[in-house]
Amino acid sequence: MLITRKAEFSASHVCADPRLSTEENERLYGRESRPLGHGHNYVVEVTVCGDVDPVHGMVLDLKALKEIIREQVLDVYDHRFLNHEVPPFDRIVPTAENVARDIWQRLKDPIGRLGPALHSIRLHESDDLFVEYSETPAP
Amino acid sequence: MLITRKAEFSASHVCADPRLSTEENERLYGRESRPLGHGHNYVVEVTVCGDVDPVHGMVLDLKALKEIIREQVLDVYDHRFLNHEVPPFDRIVPTAENVARDIWQRLKDPIGRLGPALHSIRLHESDDLFVEYSETPAP
Amino acid sequence: MLITRKAEFSASHVCADPRLSTEENERLYGRESRPLGHGHNYVVEVTVCGDVDPVHGMVLDLKALKEIIREQVLDVYDHRFLNHEVPPFDRIVPTAENVARDIWQRLKDPIGRLGPALHSIRLHESDDLFVEYSETPAP
Amino acid sequence: MLITRKAEFSASHVCADPRLSTEENERLYGRESRPLGHGHNYVVEVTVCGDVDPVHGMVLDLKALKEIIREQVLDVYDHRFLNHEVPPFDRIVPTAENVARDIWQRLKDPIGRLGPALHSIRLHESDDLFVEYSETPAP
Amino acid sequence: MLITRKAEFSASHVCADPRLSTEENERLYGRESRPLGHGHNYVVEVTVCGDVDPVHGMVLDLKALKEIIREQVLDVYDHRFLNHEVPPFDRIVPTAENVARDIWQRLKDPIGRLGPALHSIRLHESDDLFVEYSETPAP
Amino acid sequence: MLITRKAEFSASHVCADPRLSTEENERLYGRESRPLGHGHNYVVEVTVCGDVDPVHGMVLDLKALKEIIREQVLDVYDHRFLNHEVPPFDRIVPTAENVARDIWQRLKDPIGRLGPALHSIRLHESDDLFVEYSETPAP
Repeated sequence: MLITRKAEFSASHVCADPRLSTEENERLYGRESRPLGHGHNYVVEVTVCGDVDPVHGMVLDLKALKEIIREQVLDVYDHRFLNHEVPPFDRIVPTAENVARDIWQRLKDPIGRLGPALHSIRLHESDDLFVEYSETPAP
Repeated sequence: MLITRKAEFSASHVCADPRLSTEENERLYGRESRPLGHGHNYVVEVTVCGDVDPVHGMVLDLKALKEIIREQVLDVYDHRFLNHEVPPFDRIVPTAENVARDIWQRLKDPIGRLGPALHSIRLHESDDLFVEYSETPAP
Repeated sequence: MLITRKAEFSASHVCADPRLSTEENERLYGRESRPLGHGHNYVVEVTVCGDVDPVHGMVLDLKALKEIIREQVLDVYDHRFLNHEVPPFDRIVPTAENVARDIWQRLKDPIGRLGPALHSIRLHESDDLFVEYSETPAP
Repeated sequence: MLITRKAEFSASHVCADPRLSTEENERLYGRESRPLGHGHNYVVEVTVCGDVDPVHGMVLDLKALKEIIREQVLDVYDHRFLNHEVPPFDRIVPTAENVARDIWQRLKDPIGRLGPALHSIRLHESDDLFVEYSETPAP
Repeated sequence: MLITRKAEFSASHVCADPRLSTEENERLYGRESRPLGHGHNYVVEVTVCGDVDPVHGMVLDLKALKEIIREQVLDVYDHRFLNHEVPPFDRIVPTAENVARDIWQRLKDPIGRLGPALHSIRLHESDDLFVEYSETPAP
Repeated sequence: MLITRKAEFSASHVCADPRLSTEENERLYGRESRPLGHGHNYVVEVTVCGDVDPVHGMVLDLKALKEIIREQVLDVYDHRFLNHEVPPFDRIVPTAENVARDIWQRLKDPIGRLGPALHSIRLHESDDLFVEYSETPAP
């Protein structure tokens, strides 16, 4: 059984590698590389995998999951300029791929302590682009 | 090839274990445990897995699938108070997890008789919470 | 300038007039009249009309508006059985029309005290049904 | 007859008045005032009002309308930090209200030259907040 | 009080005036003029205006409204090629504007016979284009 | 890491096998078999699977992916009558299943030349029906 909770945050970012020239960044990242940044209403879907408790009928305590997402993701990312305010994005480019992997790393242990395992992170950067990341081994 | 049909139903439920006290249920289920119930516009996605018929170009007869979902799910769940009107929710708590599993059990054999196998059930309880259930063995 | 904030709540209701027979209620309200109730994820859109403050660039304090909606609507309606827990629905039928009008009455004065006037309430009962209510005089 | 075209752009902004202290801005604008900014996927709906041409069956040339929105709005706003790159937001706070009014001013004349009149601008800053602006006189 | 019901239908159409050349039609309607047609999942929103019955709490019988929309719109338009199968589109171009006006004319009298008045028709041709039509006099 | 880009196109089609009678086609495909066709706003989700480049933070060049989808899918399918204008649908029935498989075949090699592998195609024919196709071997 998989259970997924969605949350939203607003953030700004620049996709550019500081070691490259403006032209090289423009060629790699297009308009995402404009130096003053731009922003998105990100939607993150956190999926947890586990057995349903035969008594309670739940995979995990949803109130605890919501609280972990608030603490580990929303309080960190929401209304922030990722490159300047949210490590490790001072060192690595905040592409959707890297943001999804960072969210995985922030959530994996706190969710694991609730019992069931984090299964995957899906991150929507806009209506027509999303990524999905998982370190769960294939069955 | 996977093919998915969506359907909606409106129902009310209480998430509470009658053997527990009000306080214990509140601690487990939060506001979902309020004794008079509340409701949702549930969205169910029924996914079937099969080969595409080389002549007809279809995995299965979609009209037959729609009719099975209507008979086995909508006619049973729609505009009902799950705990009081839809077995087995007189005995088990109608969490999203248990509802998804019950829908799986209602659909598995009727869809199997059409040919292809039921692959998974995704059930949305609200915009920010959904579960996915499958008994399909991993490949 | 109109500004609209959306909020959601889950509630259950029965649309039936206790003075009528089951058959008469069924004829009037259809499946909405089933006596044990059913539920919806209601979406309410609260629209306020006012001038933009030339200094702040806002019609009103959005944080205050959010708090009023939480206090006057969500805390009252969310996870409740409207007929049994939310007056005046012990006396009047909780159709979408009557719920929208009740929300108008709960919000009108608290929003008015912020400065700009409540303009309209739009209430979505499901994806394919919504009502809009206003007591604002035509211009 | 009203006809509406939707478009999207990603931008970042800070809602803060440079003449006020950080605390005063925080009190006025909440998290929207964080100094490094944050961003949104803005959705703009441009509504035009006019008679249907009895021969062509159209209010206006939709290809021309799309081109005007691209030139006057998307090319100006998309992937930009509004406060620093899009006048007049170097001087006025880029609240949703002020952005909607600026879009009205950019579109009014170019659309008017096509024939029918610009009727209103609806701007969604996030899923639960939108504003609507019009200078059209009441009928 | 306004009450709106949504419905969907799939249809194909060509936007081209048979008296014009291919080039002229291409210039007027763009890709919408390709001679073999293309299609949309149209969404129609039917809005009715009326007083809330003080006893029933409803503007009108929603089951009757749904039936009228099915008979007058869905049974006529759904899974049809508008230019060839749905008059008056053998004679006039099935632009969104003309389709919305045709739906108004089909619904006005049958809804009027239920009591309250048809208020407006909103027709979505795609996610980013919709029209709204009304013959209701301004207040 | 999976990365998905969405795109939309409007097309019309008829689901009918020319070797069968009208009655047989109606029994197999229902209203989808009406001979003059009807249409949809199709939404296609193209999912690519690959490792994140440790320097750029991307799975692939999104601008190149967008261009491939435009060339191989949108330029071919958009505003077309599939049975008459888009091979192989002159020979095989354009069911959602067959369209998804055709899109897979058009995209597989051009995307593979960018580096990462095409992972799956999800095609939405309407709000309540979608298919997903993949030739990726199970892990």
